[in-house]
Parts: sequence; structure tokens; C-alpha cells
Amino acid sequence: MPDTGLDVSTTGRRVGVLVVGLGGAVATTAAAGIEMLRAGSNDMAGLPLAGVGASGIAAYRNLHFAGWDLHGENLENAVREHRVLDGEQAGIVAPALRGMTPWPAVGSVDFCKNVDGANKVAAGSHREAVDRIRDDIRRYRETSGIENLVVVNLASVERWPDKGAGALNTPEGFEKGLDSSDPAISPAMLYAYASIVEGVPYGNFTPSLAADIPALTTLAERRNVPVAGKDGKTGQTFIKTVLAPAFRSRSLYVEGWFSTNILGNRDGLALDNPDSLRSKLNTKGSVLDDILGYPVEDHIVDIRYYKPRGDNKEAWDNIDLVGFLGQKMQIKVNFLCRDSILAAPLVIEIARVLDLARQRGAGGIQEQLGLFFKAPMTRAGKREEHSFPVQERALLDWLAA
Amino acid sequence: MPDTGLDVSTTGRRVGVLVVGLGGAVATTAAAGIEMLRAGSNDMAGLPLAGVGASGIAAYRNLHFAGWDLHGENLENAVREHRVLDGEQAGIVAPALRGMTPWPAVGSVDFCKNVDGANKVAAGSHREAVDRIRDDIRRYRETSGIENLVVVNLASVERWPDKGAGALNTPEGFEKGLDSSDPAISPAMLYAYASIVEGVPYGNFTPSLAADIPALTTLAERRNVPVAGKDGKTGQTFIKTVLAPAFRSRSLYVEGWFSTNILGNRDGLALDNPDSLRSKLNTKGSVLDDILGYPVEDHIVDIRYYKPRGDNKEAWDNIDLVGFLGQKMQIKVNFLCRDSILAAPLVIEIARVLDLARQRGAGGIQEQLGLFFKAPMTRAGKREEHSFPVQERALLDWLAA
Amino acid sequence: MPDTGLDVSTTGRRVGVLVVGLGGAVATTAAAGIEMLRAGSNDMAGLPLAGVGASGIAAYRNLHFAGWDLHGENLENAVREHRVLDGEQAGIVAPALRGMTPWPAVGSVDFCKNVDGANKVAAGSHREAVDRIRDDIRRYRETSGIENLVVVNLASVERWPDKGAGALNTPEGFEKGLDSSDPAISPAMLYAYASIVEGVPYGNFTPSLAADIPALTTLAERRNVPVAGKDGKTGQTFIKTVLAPAFRSRSLYVEGWFSTNILGNRDGLALDNPDSLRSKLNTKGSVLDDILGYPVEDHIVDIRYYKPRGDNKEAWDNIDLVGFLGQKMQIKVNFLCRDSILAAPLVIEIARVLDLARQRGAGGIQEQLGLFFKAPMTRAGKREEHSFPVQERALLDWLAA
Amino acid sequence: MPDTGLDVSTTGRRVGVLVVGLGGAVATTAAAGIEMLRAGSNDMAGLPLAGVGASGIAAYRNLHFAGWDLHGENLENAVREHRVLDGEQAGIVAPALRGMTPWPAVGSVDFCKNVDGANKVAAGSHREAVDRIRDDIRRYRETSGIENLVVVNLASVERWPDKGAGALNTPEGFEKGLDSSDPAISPAMLYAYASIVEGVPYGNFTPSLAADIPALTTLAERRNVPVAGKDGKTGQTFIKTVLAPAFRSRSLYVEGWFSTNILGNRDGLALDNPDSLRSKLNTKGSVLDDILGYPVEDHIVDIRYYKPRGDNKEAWDNIDLVGFLGQKMQIKVNFLCRDSILAAPLVIEIARVLDLARQRGAGGIQEQLGLFFKAPMTRAGKREEHSFPVQERALLDWLAA
Repeated sequence: MPDTGLDVSTTGRRVGVLVVGLGGAVATTAAAGIEMLRAGSNDMAGLPLAGVGASGIAAYRNLHFAGWDLHGENLENAVREHRVLDGEQAGIVAPALRGMTPWPAVGSVDFCKNVDGANKVAAGSHREAVDRIRDDIRRYRETSGIENLVVVNLASVERWPDKGAGALNTPEGFEKGLDSSDPAISPAMLYAYASIVEGVPYGNFTPSLAADIPALTTLAERRNVPVAGKDGKTGQTFIKTVLAPAFRSRSLYVEGWFSTNILGNRDGLALDNPDSLRSKLNTKGSVLDDILGYPVEDHIVDIRYYKPRGDNKEAWDNIDLVGFLGQKMQIKVNFLCRDSILAAPLVIEIARVLDLARQRGAGGIQEQLGLFFKAPMTRAGKREEHSFPVQERALLDWLAA
Repeated sequence: MPDTGLDVSTTGRRVGVLVVGLGGAVATTAAAGIEMLRAGSNDMAGLPLAGVGASGIAAYRNLHFAGWDLHGENLENAVREHRVLDGEQAGIVAPALRGMTPWPAVGSVDFCKNVDGANKVAAGSHREAVDRIRDDIRRYRETSGIENLVVVNLASVERWPDKGAGALNTPEGFEKGLDSSDPAISPAMLYAYASIVEGVPYGNFTPSLAADIPALTTLAERRNVPVAGKDGKTGQTFIKTVLAPAFRSRSLYVEGWFSTNILGNRDGLALDNPDSLRSKLNTKGSVLDDILGYPVEDHIVDIRYYKPRGDNKEAWDNIDLVGFLGQKMQIKVNFLCRDSILAAPLVIEIARVLDLARQRGAGGIQEQLGLFFKAPMTRAGKREEHSFPVQERALLDWLAA
Repeated sequence: MPDTGLDVSTTGRRVGVLVVGLGGAVATTAAAGIEMLRAGSNDMAGLPLAGVGASGIAAYRNLHFAGWDLHGENLENAVREHRVLDGEQAGIVAPALRGMTPWPAVGSVDFCKNVDGANKVAAGSHREAVDRIRDDIRRYRETSGIENLVVVNLASVERWPDKGAGALNTPEGFEKGLDSSDPAISPAMLYAYASIVEGVPYGNFTPSLAADIPALTTLAERRNVPVAGKDGKTGQTFIKTVLAPAFRSRSLYVEGWFSTNILGNRDGLALDNPDSLRSKLNTKGSVLDDILGYPVEDHIVDIRYYKPRGDNKEAWDNIDLVGFLGQKMQIKVNFLCRDSILAAPLVIEIARVLDLARQRGAGGIQEQLGLFFKAPMTRAGKREEHSFPVQERALLDWLAA
Repeated sequence: MPDTGLDVSTTGRRVGVLVVGLGGAVATTAAAGIEMLRAGSNDMAGLPLAGVGASGIAAYRNLHFAGWDLHGENLENAVREHRVLDGEQAGIVAPALRGMTPWPAVGSVDFCKNVDGANKVAAGSHREAVDRIRDDIRRYRETSGIENLVVVNLASVERWPDKGAGALNTPEGFEKGLDSSDPAISPAMLYAYASIVEGVPYGNFTPSLAADIPALTTLAERRNVPVAGKDGKTGQTFIKTVLAPAFRSRSLYVEGWFSTNILGNRDGLALDNPDSLRSKLNTKGSVLDDILGYPVEDHIVDIRYYKPRGDNKEAWDNIDLVGFLGQKMQIKVNFLCRDSILAAPLVIEIARVLDLARQRGAGGIQEQLGLFFKAPMTRAGKREEHSFPVQERALLDWLAA
């Protein structure tokens, strides 16, 4: 009988989820959610694979969170600050979260302008920073006694580097770049590198490039370590990749698609910086054209920081369609969603599937995880698949394999 | 090379599409659209199978429309009255439509209260009415020289009969009911029966029961005639069956779904009658529960006749979702669509696929057409499949077979 | 210096607000809100007259709530049940609300089908019921030592009676009807009558007819007691009477206005009964035509009970406009509001203004309160004024007089 | 009996409306609309003052359009290009519009980046340009025999100049600036100046500063010439100034207001330039704070050029309100409007009222026209009044005076 992840036993395979950005809204929500399950809640709402069996996949209750953050407060406080959980829920998980304190993180104001913090690693060079991260990973494995680890990136979005930089193209160039503290190498890349060389699967839930550079995908293949990313597909893009395949299926021509987003959490603040915003828009951009098979002339995506929303995110989409006889129609979609509530369960599933991939001996880019990403990492030479139904089938087939 | 329906030659397999309700907005739009193609337009927008190849499927330009209607005016006038085409388009197709005049139709004010007309068959009994319909079919085949016919029901929605009535349960009971003019037998059933006994495939685009009674599905199987239905999946339900599978896939629990529709065409007027409305709501109702796998406690569907919309139809949906940690989110969808523009191409594709089914020797209920229907007819003992992506795969697989 | 109602002193004019339906969501929210102010909160959000001075008007903190309800639980419990206040707020006001227990109420399942309760006066006749109500009023005045009272009706909406019934036309007929327990007399009328004969100003926040019958308006004039009503203008109609005058001002012709409402509180349940719904739609209906000066052909108002909303109410309006050169435009308004949060402050202001009217020696219908009502009671022979800006000016002028 | 503007006689006071930007969508729609009336249409939809009497105001049919444009094609062609009128309407007005050809205009790529044209005055200096404009005005008066003229600015929006520049502060400084071709003086200012010195009332329907500089308002007062502006209040801001006063009236605190606009006409293209956009946002910005009496922390206005809309403009507003007990509510407004259809009648009314002001001997800033402007020009020292109901009352009082 396949394990559906519903196993409540305290025995069984344990998995450590090491999060870059552990103190953020998404990571604390994920950690808190797992604690809720351990505390006896049986609510599986929002967990995509809760009802899907896959032999060997870790039970939700056997996930354990730790990780890094530029803000050093413990997760009990972080949960109360983000206000994603209600007061009662925050109370239930407080004892468990109190002991979780983020390790000092590697940050770079150059790559991420609007976000900084005091809980920062003072590393003299890229190489030194990487060594600190690797030490953290090893120390956690030792002190926790948990053998199976996954690293997930949930840090604030970085601007994109010059992708042509030599350090990003080959593992060898990257090694040199570490030694010379090459400015093309971002903190997210340092974490991805450290994770891969430690043999730990790596998932990137942010729009930052991170592992999605030839240097690191090649390295992951060589070392046979599973990697996946990038940019979690939570709200507006999720709906977009659900609707667009249906329009194509009905031959409704998409003349224009205007998407605007308002959000008021720390992510929104980071995106208030034009460079970080550009990374985000990069990962959102090609989705439609890929699904529809033609370039949508007017595809506009706006993201605005709007404080009254808090962690609630709101998307408004206007879609202009042309149908039979050239006649025009419109669809407007208004999604009042909760960013962390949508994101946290995806982070959990990504960790479980990456861990399962490692067990199965799979390495390199894990395309079956495309369902969870806005800009799914794809093996060289293959086109990205964005259609939600197609992605879903791919994952279900892989799980059932 | 498979025929993609794009063949512009005047030679090739011709198909006669005999429509019950030929003068209505949907039928005239379909007929006019085909004339636009014959007049040289290459615009395939809105035709779902325009880019899909299937060996032997009829070219769009080889479809020829005829049929019955309670209103006797020719299609040139009908097109101008419905105002679905713009003035220029109406001018282009006028010469071809001028010659298409609906044959007198069988109607029943008992089954459809708000719609009546002068172009009515004065039949003394059900049997006599059936004979008139069969004569029309034969005469058309003879005078047109078109061998391959399909009947499609686009008449105004009828109230549902007492489904337990004996006449509806077996072919034998139905024959007796024809002789006794059993009041459980509706006009739509008479057309479906006539079509089946003439060996002509039958599709039902309306919510009326029509062929979806044991008497007629059994008859269709015995005589190996393809039938399909019911209720074209055009606007709101189309979107609903696209979104709901995605919510299930993300384990987003649907706490409530409120759907309201406003429309101002003749269909809307028919639905202003509570009995006809009930038929419509019957076919819309079970869609969600089937896809989601649990009963949605608050699934409300309202339809209101609202004149300012004309043939433009508007749907507003509010969806209440529960996600991770029991937290709530909402999606609102506002679809400003054109009823006939969405429906007409589906009618065309249904006719083409039913004709192809007959060629392939398939008979009885054609489940591969479920993609096009709100309440897909399904073989006894099987549950209805409503998920749009699953339905799409089923049709594409069948076409490719 | 005019008293702006912000006076925090415990001295000053005290006013008792006796509510029919004290345990409902609106009344408990109003009572709790006043307790919040007494507990030290200075938040005047939502109180329309908070910034408007009027000599002699009672300070918010000097209002004291009591009243009747078919449900007998105390207001601390009622507040927790309705979930309008958040947990922290409910805690603050709990001690004060604990002591407020509704007196047994007069109810009638004939007039209000979906709502009943155990805390019911067992009166043998209308006359006996009236006497019980009058006793309650007098006893409260005695035990509280508060001289100045106002009665406000917040009970569930009743169906409308036969307005032609003799008992409703003259004070004399009404007296006879009380003696004969005339079935045309509803519970709301009994409360209105009792209030007037006790010399206590009466406000009707519900769509029930209540005091809006010739018998009682005449009585109120004769006895010089202020009365006002009916049906609080909170959400959708509020917005409607704000927008419609602007459309008229721009000569934008309103071709149609489709309004749908979903709500999930006890009010919604009451409206699930067609008779009660009719009362509601009666009071909503004429608003547009009155403001615009012509009949809007397609003005549709739907109200649906939809549980997921709870006390949150949601309105969706679609407005079809015709502008210059006969060209069409649309506005859609989606109001996600909180029913009790909008209603409670209006109840508070109505009580304060009615009390001020009595001080000023005004009696009969108080038209200056039209701003707060969907169907403002208006002196015989005058047309109802619905335009929000015009109504606002009328109240401000009256207050400043 | 007051003249309501409905006078169809060909006799009566004639008024020449000289438009800067005559070939644009708004101007051609206004000119075409007047021709429709002259051609016998009685449809007054969209004309705000159609039902309002004012002694001496010019009849709609007595308005005559002429003016300048950088594009030199005649108005028959311009109307067909803008596609605001439908085909039938365009046909009716074609003969009258054929003869209207814009005069060469003064333009400046420095002030308005995205818009240029060939029908350009080749003036060597500001002074020369002004003389050309004044010659045009005089020549029109002579050749047409129309004594009473009004100039209205409908040219594409200019960036704002350095408002501190000396040339903009006094009439004397401006005269010097004309001689020295001071770069702070924009084309719109040249037209405003020319108009004032010719004694012709001037209205500015665009966000460009134009007459709204001390130099020109002082000049207009000295010469007693009526001026008004700026930026026509057509769609989103119109609705904003209707709703905001109602929120204030209900003490609903506006926590945030997010406004996004999509539009696809030439105006939209001009706004695609950041400098021009800034002028627009300047005039949109202060509206809310002024009405509400406090600064709205998150008031965001986005405008995006989006081709599928064409002249149809669409606004989506999200408003976050805080009500009683600090509880939150939201309103979303989606306005599918037609830019020129809303704007053209306002241009017509502005011209009629300015002409009436001149008759009445009024000069300087005409504040009674604030109703029609986003950023109403206001006499020095007075605050701008934005509330729509207050503005409406001001105009009606002025007209009735």
C-alpha cells in the first residue's frame, strides 16, 4: 500500500528541510503547518499531494524545519509578526517554534536592495561564505541525527546577474569565481552550490536565478543531486496556466492579457525595487506564449506594493479573447488570495518530492516538479512546459512510476 | 496526412446538418460562419478542432445547413434580427442565407411555455409528427444529393417530463407512446427518435432530455446510430470545469460557489419560465461535485433574463476556497461573453465528430464528445466525467485513434 | 461650542436605546461598540456623525442598550456567536455585556417564517402583548433611572400585510384591531404602537412596515412622538443612491441595473423565505426610478442566502449605461462588506437624532433621517427623496438648525 | 422660459469652438455629435446640461467646430479612423465633417514625446507662433461671421515644465519669455495666451499646465477673460469623486485606494511616455486627500497603454475601507467606459458655460466649472473642491443665478 503522507507514526523516514529565509512568512507558515499536524490536526487542506500515494514519500509529520535568515528572531515571534496564522493557531504551535532560531545568513545588498538584516554572516569571500553554509548543513545533520536533508530557497528575490558572466557557465568557472569573489555570483547561488556539493537536493521557490545557471545544473548532474525551481506558482500565474490551455483548446485567440497584482508583505517590499521586480517579471513573462503557441501582443504584468493587503495578495486579470467570426469577449478574474497560505504547502511538497527523487537515485533537473513553478527549470534543449493540466499529469505519472 | 478540416476544395465528403431550431441565434451563427468560410475567410478563431487532424473528418466548408423552426423567416432575416454578426458580415453571407428557409417545426406550448411560432406542423398525433420529420429528412437527402446527415437540437429548452413514465423507458414503450400520443413524450424526443430510426446521428445541444432517456439510448445502440448530448458547455460551466480540477489539484477546498448569469436573447426569455429554468439548472448542477469528489454545500446557480445584454451573456462567479491551515480565499470571475459566438463552433464540431463516428461504425452514446456538453450523456453505470482537461484528452485520443 | 458626541464625561444626558431584536448581530455590535468607547477606545470610524456638531445631541458614551429578543441568551454570548467582533474585542466588552439579557419578545411565525425562538411572550391577544411591551418600557425607565428612551426595531424582517386592512388605516381602527387581535397587525406594529403611546421615539431599521402605516403615523403626529424608518441603508443600496445621482448629473442613461447579494447571517436566512424577501425587495425597488426620473426597464435585485459569507455580505452590481451618441458603457461594483459593521453605527445615529428631535419638540415622521434608510418614511403627499447627497444635506441642515 | 439648449432653430446666438487638437478622438466626437443634432437627432444622452435651463446659454445646434491639429486630415477621415462612432453614424455626419480641416498646429517634441505630425506651424520663435495662432482666430471670426468664440485645449498631454521658471510667474515675465523663446513655455501656454489676448474664453481639457500658471491667470483676470481647466473628469476620477464624499459621509476610513487604467487610443500612447504620465498623475493625485480630509497612505494610480481596448478605456479600482470597530471592507469598481463618449459632451458643456460667462461679464478663473475637471483651477488662496456633489451644486447655483 502506497504511503499517502498521512502516516501519523513518529517512526519512519525523517527529512530535514533547511530553508534559506526561514524567518519569512512562507517558511514560518510551512513550519507552523507541520507543527499543527504533529499537534494532532488532521486538516490536509491545501496540501496538493495529501491524497496522492507514492511509495517511500516522507510523511508530512516527519518533516523538520531549520535554516538561515538575515533576521535572527525565533519562529514563534516571526509567526506572530507575519500574522498569517490566527491567534489560536499561533498559540498552539508556539512551544514548538520557540526553539527554532535562524542561523546567520549570507546576504548582499547589491543583489537585493530593499531587504537587509542583522543576522548576517560576516564572510570575507564567496569561498568563506560557502564554507560557512556547508558547516551549517553538516552540523545540523549531526546534531539532529536526521540523515536526509533538502535545501529550499525562500529568501527575498534577487536581481538577475549578467547571465553571460564566465563564472556562471561552467562548474570550473564557478569554482574560480568563488575564489575571486566574482560579483556575478549571488548569495542564492552560494546556497545552491553548497547544497549540491553536500549532496543535498535543492529547490528554489523564488525568481532568483540561483541554481538555474549552466554552472550549477551541470554540477548537479555530475554529482547526481536533484535540483528544481524556480519561482513558486501560487496565485495569478497558477490561474493563468489553468485558463490559457482551455482558451487554446477552444481556439479562443488571446488578444491581450493584463495582469495587475497588489500585495503588502515583505516580498512586496522587495519587489518595490525595480531590479528585483525585473527578475520576477522575467519568470512570469513567457508563460502565455508557451501555452498558446503564439506571442500575445499585449501581455502586461504589473506588481505593486500596497500595504493595506498585508500578506493577503490580490490579483486582477483582464483577458481579451477573440472568438468565432472575429468577435470579442472579455474575462476578468479577481483573486483575493493569501500568499503564504498558497505557497507554504507547495514548499512542503517540493521538499517531499525532492527527497523522494534522491531516494530513487534521480539527479539533475527534476522536471516533474514543473507544476509548482512559474518558470520550471528544464533540461537543456527542451522547451518549458507551462500548461497546468499537462504538468499535473507529468507529476502524477512520475509519482506512480 | 490527416485532414485538418482546412480543406478548401469543393469536392470531398459533404455533410448535411439538419438543425431543430434553425432560425435561432446559435444555428444562424453556425450557418453564417460556414458561409463566411466558403466565401473565402480563413479565420478559424473559435473552432476548437481547426488545428487538430483526424483522418476522414469533414472539411468545414463541406457542411450544409438546413432544418426546422417555429419561426419561418429565412436565415438572411434571422441573422439580421439576432445581431450576432456585424453589418458587414451579414452583408457577405446574405445571398447564401437568403435561400435557407426553415421547415415547419413540431412544438409544444406544454413543454416550452415562453416560445411559440406560426411555422408549426399541424400533426394530429405523435406518430404523425414523427412521420413528418422523417419525410423532411428523406426529402432533404434526395433533393440535396447529400448522403451523410446529422441532426442537431438547438430548439428552446423544454421542461423535463416525468422521467419515470413508461413510454420513456424502453423502445417498445416509446413506440406505444407514439401511437397513444403519450404526454410524457416531448417534441425534442420526437426529433431524436426520427433521427435515430432514419439512421442519422443525433446531437442535443440543449438541456432538454431529448435522446437522454433509456428508450432512445437503447434504440440508438440497437440501430448503431451515434447520439450525444446534452446542453452545450459554452460559458460559465466551461470556465467552471476548467477551474474546479485545478482547485482539486491544489487541494483547495471549495466551500461555496455562487454563479449568476444575465442574458438577453431568446434563450434567456425561455429560461424566464421556471419549468424550463429547472431543466437548465438540472444540467448545471452536478458538475462541481463530480469533479471535486465531495458535495459543495453552497453551490448556487442563478440565471436571469436581462434585456440590455442582448445576445451578449454575462456570468459572475464567486468562489470561496479554504486553503492551508483552514484559511479562506476568494476568486471572482466575470465573463463577458457572446453566447452564440461560443456555441456555434461547438455545434459545428459536434456535427463533424458525429459524422466521423458514423463513418467509423460507432453507435450509441458518443462519450468522447463530453468536452462540448454541460451534462455529457454517459453509458449506463458510468459516472459523468466533467473535468475539462480529462474530457479534452478523451476527445483527442479518440480523434487520433 | 457644539457637542460633537465625543464627550467622554460620565455626566451628561443619558439615553436608553431599547432594541427589538437585541440579540441579533446588528444590535449586539452596536451595544458592544458603545461599550468599547466607554472602555476607552477613541476610534470613531464608521460613526457618520462623529465629526458633526449638534447642540444637545447625546454623547455616544451616554447611550445604554436594552431590549427584547426571541433568543434569550445574554449579549456576551450573542457577541461570541455572531463573530462580528474579533476575539480581543469580544473579551474587552464581555463584562459589560454579560449583564444584558433580552426580555421575552413578541413574535409571530405567520409574519416571519424562518425565525422563531424560546424567549417568547405568551400573550393571549394583541392588547395583552402591547401591555407587556409598555410594562417593559416603564420598568426599564424606573430601574435604570434613564428618562430619555428610544425604541429601535432590529427584529427579523416580516412579510408585508394586506395594506388595505381597516386596522392599519386609522388610530381608531388600530385600537379595535388590538382588541380583536386583527391578523393584519404584525408584531413590529405592536412595538411601534407601544412606543408611541409611551411617548418614546421609534425608529425602524428593518423592511417590515411597522410604523409606516397611516394608523401609526397619524398617531405619532397626534401625540407628537418622532418616528423614522424604514430599512437601514447600509451596503448595496447605499452605493446605489450614491452612484445614481451622479449618472443623472452626467445624463448617462441607465438602461439596466442588475444587483445580486449574497449573505450568510440570520438576516439572510429570514430572507430565504419568499414572503420576507418580498418585503425587502419592496423597500429596495423604487430607489432608482425616483433618483433618475424615469423608470429603469431592467432593474433586478436578487438576494441569496449563502453560508460561506457569514456576517460578511457581498454585493455585485452591473450597471448598463448609455452615453453620448447612444453608445454603451458598463460599470460593475463588487462590495465586500460587513453587514453589522455598516448597520450598527447607523442604528446609533438614528437613536441619537430621534432623541434630539424629541428634545426639540419635533413629532411625527422625521424626514431628516432619510439618509439612513432605504425606504425613507415621508409625510403624506411628498415623494421619497433617495439621492444620497440631497439626503445628506437635509440632515446636516437640520442638525445645524 | 429659460433656454435649455434644446432650441432647434437655426437662428440664435452662434458660438465657434476652436479646438487645439481638432483631429483627436474627443474633438471629432464632439464635432460629430453636434452635427448629429443638426441632422435631426434628438438624443441628448450624455449631455449633462441638456435638461438644465440657463438664460442665454447657446443652443447645442449653434455650436460650430474648427481648430488646429498636428495631423492635417479632415474630420470625416479622422472620425472613421478613431472608430468611436459606428458606421451608420459616421455616414450621417460625413458630408458636414468633410469640409473641416485642421489648421497647422504648434507642437513641441520636447514637451510631448510620443506624438508628432506633419501639419505643423514652422515658427521661428514663441512670439511668431503666438502671432500665427492669433491670426487663425481672427481669420475664423471674419470668414465664419461668428462673433462669439471659445478655445478648448484637447491636444496630447505635455510634460510639466519647471513651475518656478520666471516666465511663468507674471504677465510681464511671460511677454519676455515669448520674445526670448523661453524653454519653460509650452505650446499649450502659447494657445492659452493667444486666446486670452484675443479676448476669447479658454478651457483646458488636458492635464497640461497651459493657463494654470500665475502669468496667465493674472493676465486673464486683468483682461477679464474667462478661463477654466484642467484635465476633464471623465471616467475613473469622476467615479472617485462621487464615491469618496459618500465614504466620508459614512465615516468609512479609506486605508488604501488602488486604481489601474488600461486604454488603447492615442492618449494612451502619449501617456506611455513617463514625463507625460507624470503630468497626468499630478492632476489625479490630490483628489482623494482633499475630499476625505486626511492623506490616504496608499493611493496608487496606474495607467497602461493596452491596445486591445482601443478608444474603450477600462478602469479597475480597489478600495480598502475601515469601518466601525476597526473592521475592514473592500469595494472594487470596474468601469468599462468609452473615453471619447464621456469626454466629448463635457467639452461641449465647457464651451457653452465659458461663452455664457463671457456674456455675463465674468473673467478670470471660472470655478463653477470644477465639476468637469480632475484638477479644477481655483483662485489663489482657495483650496480645490473635488467633491462631485458639492461641485454640481456650485454649477447649478451659478447657472440659476
